Amino acid sequence: MPIPMQDLSEWYTQVIEKAGLAEHSPVRGCMTIKPYGWALWENIQRPLDEAFKATGHQNAYFPLFIPLSFLAREAAHVEGFAQECAVVTHYRIQTDPVTRTVQPDPEAKLEEPLVVRPTSETIIWNTFKNWIQSYRDLPLLINQWANVVRWEKRPRLFLRTTEFLWQEGHTAHATAEEALAEARQMLEVYARFVQDYLAIPVIKGRKTPTERFAGAVETFTIETLLLDGKALQAGTSHFLGQNFAKAFEVKFLNAQNELEYVWATSWGVSTRLIGALILSHGDERGLVLPPRVAPIQVVIVPIWRSEAQQAQITEAAHRLAQQLREKGLRVKVDDDPHHRPGWKFNEWELKGVPLRLTLGPRDVEDNTVEVSWRHTGQKATHPQPAVVQACASWLEEMQRELFVRAQERIQRQTHRVDSYADMKAILEKERGFILAHWDGNAETELAIKEETGATIRCIPLEGEKEPGRCIYTGRPSEQRVLFAIAY
Amino acid sequence: MPIPMQDLSEWYTQVIEKAGLAEHSPVRGCMTIKPYGWALWENIQRPLDEAFKATGHQNAYFPLFIPLSFLAREAAHVEGFAQECAVVTHYRIQTDPVTRTVQPDPEAKLEEPLVVRPTSETIIWNTFKNWIQSYRDLPLLINQWANVVRWEKRPRLFLRTTEFLWQEGHTAHATAEEALAEARQMLEVYARFVQDYLAIPVIKGRKTPTERFAGAVETFTIETLLLDGKALQAGTSHFLGQNFAKAFEVKFLNAQNELEYVWATSWGVSTRLIGALILSHGDERGLVLPPRVAPIQVVIVPIWRSEAQQAQITEAAHRLAQQLREKGLRVKVDDDPHHRPGWKFNEWELKGVPLRLTLGPRDVEDNTVEVSWRHTGQKATHPQPAVVQACASWLEEMQRELFVRAQERIQRQTHRVDSYADMKAILEKERGFILAHWDGNAETELAIKEETGATIRCIPLEGEKEPGRCIYTGRPSEQRVLFAIAY
Repeated sequence: MPIPMQDLSEWYTQVIEKAGLAEHSPVRGCMTIKPYGWALWENIQRPLDEAFKATGHQNAYFPLFIPLSFLAREAAHVEGFAQECAVVTHYRIQTDPVTRTVQPDPEAKLEEPLVVRPTSETIIWNTFKNWIQSYRDLPLLINQWANVVRWEKRPRLFLRTTEFLWQEGHTAHATAEEALAEARQMLEVYARFVQDYLAIPVIKGRKTPTERFAGAVETFTIETLLLDGKALQAGTSHFLGQNFAKAFEVKFLNAQNELEYVWATSWGVSTRLIGALILSHGDERGLVLPPRVAPIQVVIVPIWRSEAQQAQITEAAHRLAQQLREKGLRVKVDDDPHHRPGWKFNEWELKGVPLRLTLGPRDVEDNTVEVSWRHTGQKATHPQPAVVQACASWLEEMQRELFVRAQERIQRQTHRVDSYADMKAILEKERGFILAHWDGNAETELAIKEETGATIRCIPLEGEKEPGRCIYTGRPSEQRVLFAIAY
Repeated sequence: MPIPMQDLSEWYTQVIEKAGLAEHSPVRGCMTIKPYGWALWENIQRPLDEAFKATGHQNAYFPLFIPLSFLAREAAHVEGFAQECAVVTHYRIQTDPVTRTVQPDPEAKLEEPLVVRPTSETIIWNTFKNWIQSYRDLPLLINQWANVVRWEKRPRLFLRTTEFLWQEGHTAHATAEEALAEARQMLEVYARFVQDYLAIPVIKGRKTPTERFAGAVETFTIETLLLDGKALQAGTSHFLGQNFAKAFEVKFLNAQNELEYVWATSWGVSTRLIGALILSHGDERGLVLPPRVAPIQVVIVPIWRSEAQQAQITEAAHRLAQQLREKGLRVKVDDDPHHRPGWKFNEWELKGVPLRLTLGPRDVEDNTVEVSWRHTGQKATHPQPAVVQACASWLEEMQRELFVRAQERIQRQTHRVDSYADMKAILEKERGFILAHWDGNAETELAIKEETGATIRCIPLEGEKEPGRCIYTGRPSEQRVLFAIAY
């Protein structure tokens, strides 16, 4: 069942808070990630971390603070981040002897202010300088799981927060080709993860120069479309050329014994993925979590009418849970005596638990259980042993169905458009992805953005490549690009 | 083989940098944790995280920044941390139009400065206020894995760094007894982990009021003694009473429908544990890593004399590695053609890999392999199938032996002392743990500290409790306390 689109923003905030994923903190723009939200993040981190390691990357950790002068070394980079940097200027606080208020100690001012990392290219390339001497030190394939800070004027839980959690990969290579291949490989890793685990369909593409990462030569992106027809950038992978190597003087001796600048990539996904997840699958009853990342895959609700029944049925529920856990599933028994079954049904639906098993007095007698599928609302009663056998495959089926459902939705929301008037009409009515021709010109891009609010999300890497005429200027275009109004 | 104690500090820094665990960063006091060090940290995090979850705790995440006014609410707390707080005062940077230098934008000054968390009691208790209404919300058992910042004047890699990584548990309870029991339980969890995984013997105890955490009613600690006879606090668990509940007005309705302040604990261990590890087991050849946390448990070094041999022996090495991996071991084959075997032996000994298997042409013919034990230097040649069978149990044996060896060392370094003159003599000669009587007086504690440099590490929870006379004042004492010069 769909959610009313005009209230989506309100629905989004409500569902996050009520489902216990996160909440606003008293520090403006920062969120508190609650246990249920953190469990989801752990289930996102684990397979990603495995995928990074399987492609030869190693984790490391670099300082939270970046000296101002480092940030300034790459001109485009500092320009891109200057507006959103949290700056540490003092290293001590004191209580004012007169007013009794606590304040930064004026005697403890830093000689050089430090920026709380908005991203770590500069501090990492300053370090790579010492780690790389010859081609035998390359490729250097590093990833870091960390918190970063980008001051947000209009924060939204998960989608845009001043502090967010992410991983940032930073790699160094001997050739441009190898670095480009790495950037493309990590885009594939992201696309596969987001599609296979989060059941979110994505379009892979290149960013236009206007939309590139500050300091990148090429930015690859995976873009998706959410329930309300707005686009979301779910992950990016950058080919940085030799920009950071030059800014930090990182050279290596090649096999011919010549000094060369190193080639770089960086790539990242963040807690924003949780926002994407919520806005891809949710419905009027709340979250719908894909089974592979759901903190709880199966919830069992025992129903009793007397105290004698309570003990017996609760015990049966725990026995059933144990059998499911032995199949490798994440199971919760909700035997809380303080809430009624109806309250629990709503609660676990709100939290998006994929399967609910309801166990009443009759079920215990008959050795059956009622199964309820979160994504369709479908219900059926089956013998318990059959359910124990089938649960894992039902979950895998649900995982696939969620992906297909999202894919069909996005297909419906995607429009091949050949006139600017049509594009404006569609954007005003329902937003969505617009596949249209563009002349490759930054001014055209800007004009369209100013007039419609839509930006070029990416130049798709896959799909048809037929030439045409720019929707705005009529000038020739090599392929359609993907426009949308973005989060 | 022991390391020369007069050079221990130099040895420590060298071994960390050469083994690739970590290095100093250009940001004063902050370190870069290199891939090998990070892999070790992951092997510390995993079992700890499992132990927290097994005792009913859930992970969550709270903001990096704490408003100054929050910190100020608990008087002892702010006093304890004021000297070491990094303060964010601006949220934007700009390039000065005249000097072209980058600086904090004076137009973007925060109304209230933010402190980078030195610990999270204040921000968390401000949040708990909204999470706790009735006794049914208790106990609330939360843990967070995070980075924290405490400005360090004399930083040392892992042991004292301005930014460090840790976990901090924060729990809320209905009664003082329950909170105290939680604090004691987590001390046990720490002690078991440090002894079983890091093979580091610890003494569990209470801190004296002088040495308590800022804001705690009682601080429990695990203390160990390092190779040089200096003590290290390896983990602490605090009973916070109702101090933070009162500072942040966190009350709950008890079963009798009365409002009461909540009882609290907090507890943490950090990347400092890696420092403890290095300084508990290392020797003149470098690191000695306990097998349970070693990133690489077995390294296989193939030795060849001709190119024909190289292919054959390398292949045999990888086959052997595969067999060991199937036994669940972490194995590395060092088939790098750029280094000679002798260089590799030194390298992997420096990195503390527990077992080395050397595979030469003769071994391949005979289906044997030479095994070398890092902690004893012992060597033996065995048939390959026997080695595949035995490796896991050799590693477990080594794990136990390292613990026993450290335990015997600490026993040798521990002195029951009944005269102040003896205590001073021992401290001057070899430091170590001093078990001596103390009159319970803070002035006595301070006088001893000023005269000898030794502090009371803890009042041991276990062991004999016979009364005596204070070593310094001759006044009565209930039990011996543990003195040492500490890191």
